[in-house]
Amino acid sequence: MKSDWSLFCADCGRTKPLNWLGRCECGGPLELVGPLGRVDPAGRRMVGRYGSFFPFASGDWTSLGEGGTPLVPLARLGRRLNLSALWAKNETTNPTWSFKDRGTAVCLAHAKSLGFDRIGTVSTGNMAASVAAYGAASGSETFILVKRDMPEEKLAPVAVYGARVVRVDGPYDKLYDVSLELGRRLGIYFMNSDVPFRVAGSRTIAYELAEEAPTLDWVVVPVSAGGNIRGIFEGYRQAVQMGLVQRAPRILAVQAAGCCPVTAAFESGAQAIRRFENPSTVAHAIDNPLPPSGNRALSLLRSDGGAAVAASEDEILSAQRDLCAEGLFVQPGSATAFAGLKLALARGIISAGSQAAVVLTGSGLKYQSVLEKHGLSWESCGLDELEKILR
Amino acid sequence: MKSDWSLFCADCGRTKPLNWLGRCECGGPLELVGPLGRVDPAGRRMVGRYGSFFPFASGDWTSLGEGGTPLVPLARLGRRLNLSALWAKNETTNPTWSFKDRGTAVCLAHAKSLGFDRIGTVSTGNMAASVAAYGAASGSETFILVKRDMPEEKLAPVAVYGARVVRVDGPYDKLYDVSLELGRRLGIYFMNSDVPFRVAGSRTIAYELAEEAPTLDWVVVPVSAGGNIRGIFEGYRQAVQMGLVQRAPRILAVQAAGCCPVTAAFESGAQAIRRFENPSTVAHAIDNPLPPSGNRALSLLRSDGGAAVAASEDEILSAQRDLCAEGLFVQPGSATAFAGLKLALARGIISAGSQAAVVLTGSGLKYQSVLEKHGLSWESCGLDELEKILR
Repeated sequence: MKSDWSLFCADCGRTKPLNWLGRCECGGPLELVGPLGRVDPAGRRMVGRYGSFFPFASGDWTSLGEGGTPLVPLARLGRRLNLSALWAKNETTNPTWSFKDRGTAVCLAHAKSLGFDRIGTVSTGNMAASVAAYGAASGSETFILVKRDMPEEKLAPVAVYGARVVRVDGPYDKLYDVSLELGRRLGIYFMNSDVPFRVAGSRTIAYELAEEAPTLDWVVVPVSAGGNIRGIFEGYRQAVQMGLVQRAPRILAVQAAGCCPVTAAFESGAQAIRRFENPSTVAHAIDNPLPPSGNRALSLLRSDGGAAVAASEDEILSAQRDLCAEGLFVQPGSATAFAGLKLALARGIISAGSQAAVVLTGSGLKYQSVLEKHGLSWESCGLDELEKILR
Repeated sequence: MKSDWSLFCADCGRTKPLNWLGRCECGGPLELVGPLGRVDPAGRRMVGRYGSFFPFASGDWTSLGEGGTPLVPLARLGRRLNLSALWAKNETTNPTWSFKDRGTAVCLAHAKSLGFDRIGTVSTGNMAASVAAYGAASGSETFILVKRDMPEEKLAPVAVYGARVVRVDGPYDKLYDVSLELGRRLGIYFMNSDVPFRVAGSRTIAYELAEEAPTLDWVVVPVSAGGNIRGIFEGYRQAVQMGLVQRAPRILAVQAAGCCPVTAAFESGAQAIRRFENPSTVAHAIDNPLPPSGNRALSLLRSDGGAAVAASEDEILSAQRDLCAEGLFVQPGSATAFAGLKLALARGIISAGSQAAVVLTGSGLKYQSVLEKHGLSWESCGLDELEKILR
């Protein structure tokens, strides 16, 4: 069965075997190709429902119950925006409270199928916590490489899983490739942000959306490294082949205006992204000045009828409050997607009457200090004055 | 249909109608009684699967996708403890990352069925966030009453949902009853920790456990107000009636030794709990010196073959690390349950070879400052020294 599977480079057309780690030798990101699986209707979450979409034996998987996240209808907000339907795909209910768990579980199964018992990643946030957790669950020795100046408060909720957290001095960009190369040499599976199996994990977001909301016109996705949006594109192509949807929805990529290399290239008509200089945004989770899958995301947006916008800091914070007003507290990087939806409606990119879903990638609990920017307030009273307040 | 339903007081035998708010006039906590529902196999989460177990019309519900949480097998840890099976019921994957969302959704449906558009609660933690979120989602005016000295960092992630957060000066214990009484008078539905419909929401934890692990010997539950464990007892009684399980598992109640009024009464053979003086524990989420459903929990533990233990601060922190080593980062109040499981095994309360499940009630992200107590560490290096570290 595994012989039907390979890794394909859409940039140069080369094909690599499943045990190839890292990018294509042309530098392009690789994509998992193989036979379509069958949705198991008895499966409630990712591995149970979509396990056959991956080239693994059942013993390869370590699952913490990732995927199968709720698709929450936001009827009131949808009406206010003149959409005929609006949903939130709430990825904050994953085991480490972000979408990263899908890709981590898939990478870990791949690592195990190849015999690795040491894994790692380069990350500062959601992915670090996810890899640390799954590394622990699988009994793997786990390395989390972070920037030298990462604050300790962000390291503790990663280190608590027992991973080896290493602050690396030197250019952070290089760490992505250096880690993959060292990993190959030293027998450590680095599951960085756009490796093929992480991207394949994100396909399952599209599978679930296709099953639960088959008539969507638009899916709105925040973009950082570009791996998640690639996976959603790939997943929808498969969903069309499977007949889960008649046509794929269009994808709206959203970045923060303070770090928007993909949106800038999309809007200027450039063939390739350029490093975004002096990035600065409250949306730390998507603060990537040179996304490794940025060019692939750009080309998919163009070939598959997507669009890209960038939201200002005020728009991001306002979107965070909008979602809280629907009961959904997400991190600023995730709120950015909703800010982008409003922009795309205002600019006529998305038409009134459309059906849209916003992918909410990570929990608001991940970055609580941003709450200081919201000017929140509370009242005080004595027990005997309470009635006056409640009246 | 609603005429088949009522609220029953097991203390004095009185029955109240569904629109009765607050406790029985004898002071006892009320319990929802009515016809058994039917499990809808097509429903994946609480409302879809178990909606018929509640006396509401479908339009009464506001759901954010609560329930249907993963039951995670902990094979390695189970073997280490000589259990024949061990699972974690991961309630941290609920919409506000704690089990409270189940009871909040049920209370809110009740409130809506009675025509309330103002809701509230008295809480400092998980329940405050849950009620604030569901209040927002349902468009209800929402009051969260907290202690006067509650730190601002705990208020912000509640206030961000748009609830009115009120710090109330005066004896905190009284606030529980005063809020219920004011609520009745002023038309605010206070969904406090052991109101009957919140307890009924916790029944669905038992339904899910019964469906997914029907041969459990023990379920381990951290106890604070006593509402959650009551719901799990009630839910299992129903699960037996429905034939989901042949017999209910035994329930192990766990409290922190620094605040353990229920365990103290259970161990001493007392008929009633007494206020726990000078409570002090890292397990803030279960730090309740006079639990309103403490006596009911005590009597259920005795009548239904349960047991109770209390874990020390060191045992709680150690249990938190044990669970992290399986990929599950929970708050100390939840880790307390696992600490109690280890104690019960060491004391022979639970026999080797048993099957057990631990209910993990809330996310570790809720209380990150406790991580300082774990003595976590990280390494540092230059990019050129990385190979030495990864070797």
